[in-house]
Amino acid sequence: MKCIKTRETVLFYDTDCGGVVSNIAYLRYIERARCTLLAELGMELTAMNETNLFPAVIRTEVDYLSPARLGDEVEVSACMEGAERVRATCGFELSVSGERVVARAKQIVALVQMPSGRPRRIPADWFTDNESGESF
Amino acid sequence: MKCIKTRETVLFYDTDCGGVVSNIAYLRYIERARCTLLAELGMELTAMNETNLFPAVIRTEVDYLSPARLGDEVEVSACMEGAERVRATCGFELSVSGERVVARAKQIVALVQMPSGRPRRIPADWFTDNESGESF
Amino acid sequence: MKCIKTRETVLFYDTDCGGVVSNIAYLRYIERARCTLLAELGMELTAMNETNLFPAVIRTEVDYLSPARLGDEVEVSACMEGAERVRATCGFELSVSGERVVARAKQIVALVQMPSGRPRRIPADWFTDNESGESF
Amino acid sequence: MKCIKTRETVLFYDTDCGGVVSNIAYLRYIERARCTLLAELGMELTAMNETNLFPAVIRTEVDYLSPARLGDEVEVSACMEGAERVRATCGFELSVSGERVVARAKQIVALVQMPSGRPRRIPADWFTDNESGESF
Repeated sequence: MKCIKTRETVLFYDTDCGGVVSNIAYLRYIERARCTLLAELGMELTAMNETNLFPAVIRTEVDYLSPARLGDEVEVSACMEGAERVRATCGFELSVSGERVVARAKQIVALVQMPSGRPRRIPADWFTDNESGESF
Repeated sequence: MKCIKTRETVLFYDTDCGGVVSNIAYLRYIERARCTLLAELGMELTAMNETNLFPAVIRTEVDYLSPARLGDEVEVSACMEGAERVRATCGFELSVSGERVVARAKQIVALVQMPSGRPRRIPADWFTDNESGESF
Repeated sequence: MKCIKTRETVLFYDTDCGGVVSNIAYLRYIERARCTLLAELGMELTAMNETNLFPAVIRTEVDYLSPARLGDEVEVSACMEGAERVRATCGFELSVSGERVVARAKQIVALVQMPSGRPRRIPADWFTDNESGESF
Repeated sequence: MKCIKTRETVLFYDTDCGGVVSNIAYLRYIERARCTLLAELGMELTAMNETNLFPAVIRTEVDYLSPARLGDEVEVSACMEGAERVRATCGFELSVSGERVVARAKQIVALVQMPSGRPRRIPADWFTDNESGESF
């Protein structure tokens, strides 16, 4: 299973007046991890400026488990958990100090040709090869 | 069932280079609707600056169904769908031009006393009175 | 001089862990006011999806004068203060409760034809007619 | 003069439907650089959760000089350009591929004790020692 890791430092713009990271900020952390994962699978961001073929998020689920605070280092693990004809599922785990899990998330992504909005087939190499046992 | 409606105009900061509203921007639309719904139920934003009792989102689900574009008027319906001892479920439907549904979402909210982070009991009047049949 | 007013309610995503509105959030308030002002002058947001002619901000200045807090109602006044061949200057004043000024800002805008990025001439009717004395 | 560098990869949430980085996103890039610069000068983010002494931005100026696009690597240089009794001036230069300057900015910062909002004296070691000639 293809997995990557990214790191975030919690900045002011990630927090709100409750004193902790906003539920919305996690979506930015997840986006960076998703883009890094897809780049590993061959979909480079810079290429999309030319191809206009974009990964569109069609479903998001986030469970907020524990608060993160200003200055915390958040590690994000992202894995391609499964792929079908026109949609792929990415799983995410976010933790602070490499141990306390602060959130878990899942996103379903489709490849969409803009500006028509037409869906495109998921590349074969996004499909998880369970036999390979590849992991991070 | 307690429900409210809010309205959003899609601005530049809501869109991304795919030409449509970003998956993250919907969380802002949902936050405004959630805050408006909770204010209707007696939790005014301005009061929270004094009480430090905040509604914390502990789970988010969003299904992105159809794209919205710059300048679109997005109507957001939010309903208190259910409440338990320490958590309440809000449901959201976002539509453009009052007809095309662009997204549906659900959030589970807990009331948290900051800075301790201790959960507080959900007020009795957040509980849906199914008999009343009140609706929008 | 052409002027408009918009209103914002400070939501969680506008604040940070300092307990007040983030310096970045003011740029969203200003964007809504700028878009409303330009729509009054004939540049509707929805039309831009077709024309690809966008108002690009080429300079921003903001003075943060007083804090705004969760739930505050922020009134934003925006005026077209001047226009030259290829740039227009918008002025902004943000106040809470219609009296305490929380920020003042200025933005210089150019009209840019995308994707080429070529600048276009500012429409004649954006130029301030000082004689008319029109105001809000 | 104290200077630091940070790096950003342009993600979807940084761009808008004009196809380039939003004027608002630059403020996030600048915030990371400012926080990194202040950490170098002894103001660590994590400590602020305890001290409630925050660097408040009281003025921002940004000149947007050239567009940046999805996937671009933006290098941000930030320098402490000057300090007075209660305010310090930070200068920023943002460039893509280490050569094309996309924006220049300046922010004036005050140290504010929350929740009282009282300003605190700028630490002596933030003052630029022009004789030292230290640079990056």
